[in-house]
Amino acid sequence: MTRSTAAREQTINLGAGPSTLPTPVLLEASQGLLDYDNLGMGLTELSHRSPNFQKLLQQAENDLRKLLDVPEDYAVLFLQGGGTEQFSATVLNMLAAHAARNPSYQGTPPVDYVVSGAWSNKACKEAQRLAPRVNVVADLRASITNKDTPITPPEEWSLSSVEEAPVMLHYCDNETIGGFEFPSDFIKRLPQAYRERVPIVADCSSNILSRSIDVRAHGAIYFGVQKNIGPSGLAVVIVRRDLVVDPDAMRASYTPVIPTSLVYKNAMDNGSLYNTPPMFPIYVSALVFRDLLKDGGVDGAQQRAEKRSKLVYDALLAEPKLFRLVVQHEEFRSQMNVTFRILDPASQEPSPDLETKFVKFCGEHRILNVKGHRSVGGLRVSLYNAVTVAQAETFVHVVAQFAKQNL
Amino acid sequence: MTRSTAAREQTINLGAGPSTLPTPVLLEASQGLLDYDNLGMGLTELSHRSPNFQKLLQQAENDLRKLLDVPEDYAVLFLQGGGTEQFSATVLNMLAAHAARNPSYQGTPPVDYVVSGAWSNKACKEAQRLAPRVNVVADLRASITNKDTPITPPEEWSLSSVEEAPVMLHYCDNETIGGFEFPSDFIKRLPQAYRERVPIVADCSSNILSRSIDVRAHGAIYFGVQKNIGPSGLAVVIVRRDLVVDPDAMRASYTPVIPTSLVYKNAMDNGSLYNTPPMFPIYVSALVFRDLLKDGGVDGAQQRAEKRSKLVYDALLAEPKLFRLVVQHEEFRSQMNVTFRILDPASQEPSPDLETKFVKFCGEHRILNVKGHRSVGGLRVSLYNAVTVAQAETFVHVVAQFAKQNL
Repeated sequence: MTRSTAAREQTINLGAGPSTLPTPVLLEASQGLLDYDNLGMGLTELSHRSPNFQKLLQQAENDLRKLLDVPEDYAVLFLQGGGTEQFSATVLNMLAAHAARNPSYQGTPPVDYVVSGAWSNKACKEAQRLAPRVNVVADLRASITNKDTPITPPEEWSLSSVEEAPVMLHYCDNETIGGFEFPSDFIKRLPQAYRERVPIVADCSSNILSRSIDVRAHGAIYFGVQKNIGPSGLAVVIVRRDLVVDPDAMRASYTPVIPTSLVYKNAMDNGSLYNTPPMFPIYVSALVFRDLLKDGGVDGAQQRAEKRSKLVYDALLAEPKLFRLVVQHEEFRSQMNVTFRILDPASQEPSPDLETKFVKFCGEHRILNVKGHRSVGGLRVSLYNAVTVAQAETFVHVVAQFAKQNL
Repeated sequence: MTRSTAAREQTINLGAGPSTLPTPVLLEASQGLLDYDNLGMGLTELSHRSPNFQKLLQQAENDLRKLLDVPEDYAVLFLQGGGTEQFSATVLNMLAAHAARNPSYQGTPPVDYVVSGAWSNKACKEAQRLAPRVNVVADLRASITNKDTPITPPEEWSLSSVEEAPVMLHYCDNETIGGFEFPSDFIKRLPQAYRERVPIVADCSSNILSRSIDVRAHGAIYFGVQKNIGPSGLAVVIVRRDLVVDPDAMRASYTPVIPTSLVYKNAMDNGSLYNTPPMFPIYVSALVFRDLLKDGGVDGAQQRAEKRSKLVYDALLAEPKLFRLVVQHEEFRSQMNVTFRILDPASQEPSPDLETKFVKFCGEHRILNVKGHRSVGGLRVSLYNAVTVAQAETFVHVVAQFAKQNL
């Protein structure tokens, strides 16, 4: 095992997800894969209904509840799939909840979406396939990269009227591709009547556990685990129990039938064991939750995230002739995904050549996966929970060296 | 690592799934979890779009094509979730295919299901939620446990008429809970006109790769991998390409909207990378495919499966006063899941006490997970591909010892 971990120590993986995981967790999981709890069987070879696995699942839930201060009137569901499947599942389940809560509703209720980047736009497009009426309350994308146009605040969003009983408001807390992150508690600036009556649903796939979030302010929070937590193939949904209904019990003209595996009530009533869950990602996630609790919880993670991102942003801002941040509004810059362009110092235009050179330069220092998303180009470095402050420091040194050589 | 593998060698896991996996594969995967391909990063930490993972995915597909002799006009899709999600996805995608192939169809087309146990019944129930018209062509459950009522053969099933253009015929090739397995090529006894015009869809979750199957006789074959192949969280669908359509391009009154993550065309057009796939189960599956190819392919697996199941059935049949097989028709007894009751030798009625004693006796010999499914009771031993013939022999010795002590 020493050879494997030595190679890991020389490598800094700044990929946007699936992303780096803590070495001690992977070491433990690699043992558990062969022999879990001294059973002579590996974790993925146990029955998902065995006492050992059920204990693990319960521990994962308990620890996550502690980390995020999840109240008892919220269920925690461990589901197959990832964020994309939840784009469908959230709107389908919330439509069913709407029908159950508004039995004499006339017409088609609106579903509100904020678009702040590629992922919230995907979620919104999926809702347009599945729900009869989608209302884009704000599209922030153009303002994000333009420092002269402010980001429209919640007070000014074109929300559906509360009298129409909107199904939910969906937003993406951190846009992995664009590097746009809502400031904490931004969503609380929504009108009080709206917040009280409309379930707010947050996609936290790429920043969960990196900072505190007020679960009580939400109808549901969901995340694929493959960024801050564990291997791909697992989505976690934290949802207020009164919003979890049997979708077949009360159908309305606007409620599609929900495929069984996407029905939250099946997962809730069966303790996430309606069918075989993705056991290995649950296992690794449980270990990550346990260790994070020991390591200062979400507050500790938040302090480290602030340190890492400050280091990196400061280093890039220190050389404005060479680096330009994609997100032009400081308070909306993601602590998880730093997106930037490299400029030709003479023309001050983005230089794909210099960007390629930077990727190569990083590679020579064993810093990997710093290319931007294929849909937007440029550079992106992701500073998830498993990236250490020391690794961010190393990256910053490399940035400074690159600047010295290219200015 | 030696301690882990030593404990494994003393343990025989006859669980029905998730089930035992080959030790060499798990050893390799536990290394790859820490450092894959000498990258200094583990497999689950790579981008799913990285060349290394794409190569692995391609290798998995190529090897599976070789193992099952999958023709080029069939796509191989690696999807999140498992069999339960495919209960929904198959009928939804086949309804869309039906609409695309029958653009001027009037009325609601029937979807045919054979019910032969708990899983095919679940699939059928899900179709009843999602499709407007389901036709149960045969319910074999009562006959299975009664030696005096023959299993109705395909020639006598109440198939929908070909003129009505049935959407598909769904069957479950091996029922994990009941221990009922269709004889190879049984399905070919369907009327020729029906076979030529109706896509046959097989759930092979619990016997795939244990015997040959004629892919060309099917519109689609699907399986969750967590029995014969790898860790839970991955479903594989092998589907004839002309049945894979854009469900939004041609809607009919009988086609529900399909959640994006369940749309086969998204997976096919994006090489199973429409969204982040369950990377770890794909990895382990790729290793299992590779090793099985070296180990005689499906023919080799079939020979070993025949040996194992013959050993076990013979041992149980040798003591008819103590053991009664659940499946009363010899040619329908599963090679994967052997279900049986233990009888009170005096009354010849099933004895829960003796069954509990048997489970305990097996446990003393480190033979685990032999209890029947919680919904039916009794005993069940699962003899999947990763169970060795030597392990089946050990079990048979324990059966003989138990019989000696209790008769």
